[in-house]
Amino acid sequence: MIILGIDPGTATTGYGVIKIPDDILGREFKYGIELITYGNIHTPKERLMQDRLQMIHSELTKIIKQYKPDQMISEMLFFGANTRTAIMVGQARGVIMLTAAQFKIPFQDYTGPQIKLMVAGSGRADKNQVHDGVRKFLGTPGRRRNKLKVNWKGGHLDDATDALAIAICHVLKLAAK
Amino acid sequence: MIILGIDPGTATTGYGVIKIPDDILGREFKYGIELITYGNIHTPKERLMQDRLQMIHSELTKIIKQYKPDQMISEMLFFGANTRTAIMVGQARGVIMLTAAQFKIPFQDYTGPQIKLMVAGSGRADKNQVHDGVRKFLGTPGRRRNKLKVNWKGGHLDDATDALAIAICHVLKLAAK
Repeated sequence: MIILGIDPGTATTGYGVIKIPDDILGREFKYGIELITYGNIHTPKERLMQDRLQMIHSELTKIIKQYKPDQMISEMLFFGANTRTAIMVGQARGVIMLTAAQFKIPFQDYTGPQIKLMVAGSGRADKNQVHDGVRKFLGTPGRRRNKLKVNWKGGHLDDATDALAIAICHVLKLAAK
Repeated sequence: MIILGIDPGTATTGYGVIKIPDDILGREFKYGIELITYGNIHTPKERLMQDRLQMIHSELTKIIKQYKPDQMISEMLFFGANTRTAIMVGQARGVIMLTAAQFKIPFQDYTGPQIKLMVAGSGRADKNQVHDGVRKFLGTPGRRRNKLKVNWKGGHLDDATDALAIAICHVLKLAAK
């Protein structure tokens, strides 16, 4: 099963693709997660918003065609963000959800605290702890740069790593069922 | 020139199509606006959000192909809405902006107070005053139901009328230049 995690944003939409055995249920899943690729869809801020959204749609379409995910997972914005941020993230999210629907890929999302809890063991984990969690599930600590820097497209490393955390969260939820 | 006004929302996206003479500048524009159609894209709340967004995309695509607008105009959500509302409206907006970009139709938006000011004469006008403004520009008051109920697809009359107000706002802005 191929899982595509997405961390939506107008400037940078992070994505991470992982593969898990179909019989993940009840296995030692932490050794069974395979990293396929990760990266960012980066859109230039001098472009019109509608064109930036189209870039997200078009890049995401390419990623889906290439990696054929069975499931798309994203993060639901936590309440309390300001209106402007919420609209901007909502716009990117809308395009991402539309793309999932166009390819008939099931789409699901988790809140930030859910992702932190599953990947780092606490709903209040900070970014470093989450990223440590991602390394724990995807490879040996210390080999991160070599192992993870695949298909890089610019933008913040954080967003792509967050996208992997989102995908891992879904695996852990599946395994916990 | 054909203008498509859009009032974005997940449950109901209102739309209104109007036509203005190309030489609107400096004319008595209020007699020059022609109502082409208006209605709502209504999505059932029991469907998944991604499917509802796809319905908006698909219906909007049909409207664009049929009426071939030269310009798409929408409303920018006013600050102060709660996060959940902002994300929901943002998602629908993202899909609408993407559709505009896919057809290479210029997209522009105005805030609620700007629309109220242009259509009803005050940035604090209430819904009735805005709808009176729409009737003033599009036809004789009192003939609203017969004249405007075209291509009706369910949902709130308000959203479709708001979409017309949005389109009219743009015409008045053009004429004021």
